[in-house]
Amino acid sequence: MTKAKSGLKIAIAGLGVVGSEVARQLINRHGDLATAAGQSLDIVAVSARDRSADRAFSLDGIDWYDDAAQLAARDDVDIIVEMIGGSEGVALDLARASLSSGKHFVTANKAMIAHHGTELATLAEANNANLMFEAAVAGGIPAVKTLREGLAGNQINRVAGILNGTCNYILSTMETTGRDFDEVLADAQRLGYAEAEPSFDVDGIDAAHKLTILAAIAFGHQPDFNAVSIQGIRDVSSVDFAYANQLGFRIKLVGVAEPGLMPRMQTCLLPLNSQLAKVNGVLNAVEFHGTPVGSVLTVGPGAGGGATSSAVLSDLIDIAAGRGGLAFGKPVSQLADSSAVKNGAGPDKPFYVRLMVVDQPGVLATVTAILQKHDISIEGLLQQGRAPGDVVALVMTTHETPVASLKKALDEMEDLPIVKAKPVAMPILLADSEG
Amino acid sequence: MTKAKSGLKIAIAGLGVVGSEVARQLINRHGDLATAAGQSLDIVAVSARDRSADRAFSLDGIDWYDDAAQLAARDDVDIIVEMIGGSEGVALDLARASLSSGKHFVTANKAMIAHHGTELATLAEANNANLMFEAAVAGGIPAVKTLREGLAGNQINRVAGILNGTCNYILSTMETTGRDFDEVLADAQRLGYAEAEPSFDVDGIDAAHKLTILAAIAFGHQPDFNAVSIQGIRDVSSVDFAYANQLGFRIKLVGVAEPGLMPRMQTCLLPLNSQLAKVNGVLNAVEFHGTPVGSVLTVGPGAGGGATSSAVLSDLIDIAAGRGGLAFGKPVSQLADSSAVKNGAGPDKPFYVRLMVVDQPGVLATVTAILQKHDISIEGLLQQGRAPGDVVALVMTTHETPVASLKKALDEMEDLPIVKAKPVAMPILLADSEG
Repeated sequence: MTKAKSGLKIAIAGLGVVGSEVARQLINRHGDLATAAGQSLDIVAVSARDRSADRAFSLDGIDWYDDAAQLAARDDVDIIVEMIGGSEGVALDLARASLSSGKHFVTANKAMIAHHGTELATLAEANNANLMFEAAVAGGIPAVKTLREGLAGNQINRVAGILNGTCNYILSTMETTGRDFDEVLADAQRLGYAEAEPSFDVDGIDAAHKLTILAAIAFGHQPDFNAVSIQGIRDVSSVDFAYANQLGFRIKLVGVAEPGLMPRMQTCLLPLNSQLAKVNGVLNAVEFHGTPVGSVLTVGPGAGGGATSSAVLSDLIDIAAGRGGLAFGKPVSQLADSSAVKNGAGPDKPFYVRLMVVDQPGVLATVTAILQKHDISIEGLLQQGRAPGDVVALVMTTHETPVASLKKALDEMEDLPIVKAKPVAMPILLADSEG
Repeated sequence: MTKAKSGLKIAIAGLGVVGSEVARQLINRHGDLATAAGQSLDIVAVSARDRSADRAFSLDGIDWYDDAAQLAARDDVDIIVEMIGGSEGVALDLARASLSSGKHFVTANKAMIAHHGTELATLAEANNANLMFEAAVAGGIPAVKTLREGLAGNQINRVAGILNGTCNYILSTMETTGRDFDEVLADAQRLGYAEAEPSFDVDGIDAAHKLTILAAIAFGHQPDFNAVSIQGIRDVSSVDFAYANQLGFRIKLVGVAEPGLMPRMQTCLLPLNSQLAKVNGVLNAVEFHGTPVGSVLTVGPGAGGGATSSAVLSDLIDIAAGRGGLAFGKPVSQLADSSAVKNGAGPDKPFYVRLMVVDQPGVLATVTAILQKHDISIEGLLQQGRAPGDVVALVMTTHETPVASLKKALDEMEDLPIVKAKPVAMPILLADSEG
C-alpha cells in the first residue's frame, strides 16, 4: 500500500526563533523526517526580514524572498509554513493567498486562527488544501490532535487548560516566593519568560486565543475570539496565595470551555490535589473531559522553538501522510455559528472572597448579614491575626453561588465603612478531576 | 473536498465490558459519530458467548454469530473490532483472517500486538487494511496517536509510563495507608480494581505488553515482548514507602524505553516533584521525551469500558476519515528487528537500598566498606530508631552505580551475619522532568 511519493516542497515565512528551528530540523534531520512522513520534506524558499542574520542552518540552495507574499505565488510550493505572527496584515494576506492557490498552510498563529479561522478553513476546503495549526495551541502538546482525533469518539463536556506559560510561571513564583506581581513580572522579563510588553500574556489574551480554538473544535462551532470572556492575572495579590493554600487551593489562570457557554479565561482557585493545580512553572496543560472517556490530561512545554517546531513538524508529516483532515474536525458548513455560545455567567460556582476590613467587633456579623441577604452560604472562613483598629484580611469560601448574587453582595460590602479596599473574588473550579 | 462516503460496516467480536460499551456508543450516538467520522459507522454483526445476556443496547437488526471466525468471512464487513482478548487462539485467528481478507482490524488486545504485532502489521500492509490498537495502550489516553503522529517530528529519547492502574492503585494505597501488599491487593480485588487472578497485573506483564508496543513505535523496531525486562510489585514492602518519602521519593511501577536499550518494567523511585510521581490511584500516565519537543506528559484512565471504548471509537473514526496509517508508524520493512534492542543493564543509575541489620556498633562501617570496595558512593542515609541488638532498617541512596557493581555488593552484604534479610534495592529514576 506504500505509494511512491515525490516529496513536498515547503516555503517558510518568518525565520524568528520558531521559524529558524523548523528550518534547522527540516534540514538537519531530513532523512528521519522523510521516513516519518513517507516522503521527503524539502525547503525550497524562505522569507524573512534580514537576509544576512547569523543562522544555525545554511540557506544554500534555498530561494530567498524579502516579501512573504511572493512565496504563495510560486507554483512549485506545496506547503507554506507561516511563522510571522499577527492576526492581520502580512500573515493573513499570506494565508489567504496560499490557501486560495491550493497550498497547504501550517501556522503557529493563534491570533489569526482565533480571529479568522472560519474564513481560512472555508478557503482550505474550497481549494482542497489543509489548514493546520497544532503549534497555535499549547506549544509542544499535541492538543489539537488529541481533541480533534484522539478523543474524536467523545462528547466533550469540558476543556480546561493552563494555556499561558508566562502567567503560570508568574503565579507559581508569586506563590513560592510570596513576592508581588510587578516584581515577579520584572524577573520573568529578565529571564526571557515574559515579553517587554507583557500585556498579551498577563492580560490573558494569548491564552484566550488558544481557548477560542479549543472551544471551536470541542463543541463544533466557528472560532470567535469576541465570544470569549477574558480576565488576566494583574489583580492577584501575593497574600491570596497563602490564604488559598490554607483553604486547600492554588491560584491559576485557567481557560474553561463548556458546551453552550461562553469560554472563559479566568484567574481561579483549584483544589491542591487536582491535576491542573500540580502543573507549575512555564508549562502548559490541557484537561479534556468527555463521555465515554472521562478525563485526559496533557502537560508539556507551551512555548519556545523546540516545542513549537515539534508541533509544526507533526503538521507537515500529517499533510505528507494524507491525514491533514479538516481544520476544526468537521466541514465549516457543519460548524454552528458562534451565537451557539451563550453569553452567560454559567452555572453557580463556589467563590473565594477576600475583604480588607477594620479589625473591630461586629465586622463578621455585618458581612455575614449581607451574604445571608443574598442567599450566599459560607463554606470556609479565615480570620487571621488580631490587630484591633487596623486593617486585616477576612477570607471566605462560599458554596455554589450565582455570579449575580455575589456581585451584588460584594458591591454592598465595598460600600461599608469598615471595608477598606475593593473586595477580591475568584471562582473556585471544583469539577477538575483529582489524581 | 468532502467526498460522499457510503458508511462503514462494523462487526464486533466479544461483548464483555468494553465490547458492549463500544456497541452501545455506536448505536446510541450514531449521528454524532457519523459526523465525526464523515460517514456512518454501522454495526452489522456481533459475536459473543451468550446471546441471551442482558445488554444495555438492542441487538435488533444485528446479525449474531456464536463463532467469531464467521465475522471475517462476511464480505460486507469493512472493520472487525476484536474485544475477545488473549494473545493466541480465537483472537489471533480472527486477526489473521480479517486482515487477510482486507478488513480493517481494531483491537484493545495488547498481548496479541506485543507478541504478533509484526506479523499482523505485515498482513495489514499487504492487504491494504488498517491495524489499529489505540485501546491496547493506556486505555483512554491517546498514547499511540500522540507518539505515532502528535510527536512524529521528534527523535524520541525516552518513553516512561505508569501503564497499569491496578499496580498504581496498590502502590498508592500502600503508601497512604501503610498497609502491606497482600492486604491492599485483597481490597483492590473487592473493589474490582484487581482480577481474582492478579498475576498479569501485579507481575508487570500487562504493563510490559503496553511498553512493548510503545517502544516499537518510539524507536522503529518490531514489537518483541521477549525483549522486555519485567519486574512486578510483589516484593515492595510497606516500610519502603515511608523511607523513600523521607528521602524525597515515591515508589512506582514504571515502564521505561530508551533507544537501543531493552525496555524495562521496573519498580523504582521517582522524585516526589516529578510529574509521574504525582499520578496516583488507578490512573495511567505516559511521558514522552523527544527532540526538539522536550517532555510531554499524558494522564488518564487506563482501563474500563468508557476509557477503552473512547480509544476504539477514535480508531474507527480514523479509519473512516482515511487516516488509519501504518500500525507502527512506518512500513514493516523499515522496522528494525528486535536485535536492535540490546539486552544490557543500561546506563549507571542511582539506587535505593534497604538492609535489615542488627543494631550493633560497627554495622555502618562494615556496610560502607563493602560499598567502597565496589566503588559505590552513598548519596543519602537513613538509620532510624535505636534498638540495640534488634533488627533495624538501614536505608541508603547511592550515586550513579553500575548495576553489576551493586549486585556484587548486595550479594556480599547478604552473606554478612549482621544482615538478617535479603537486601532490597530499587533504581531511582531521576531523568523524569519536574513540574
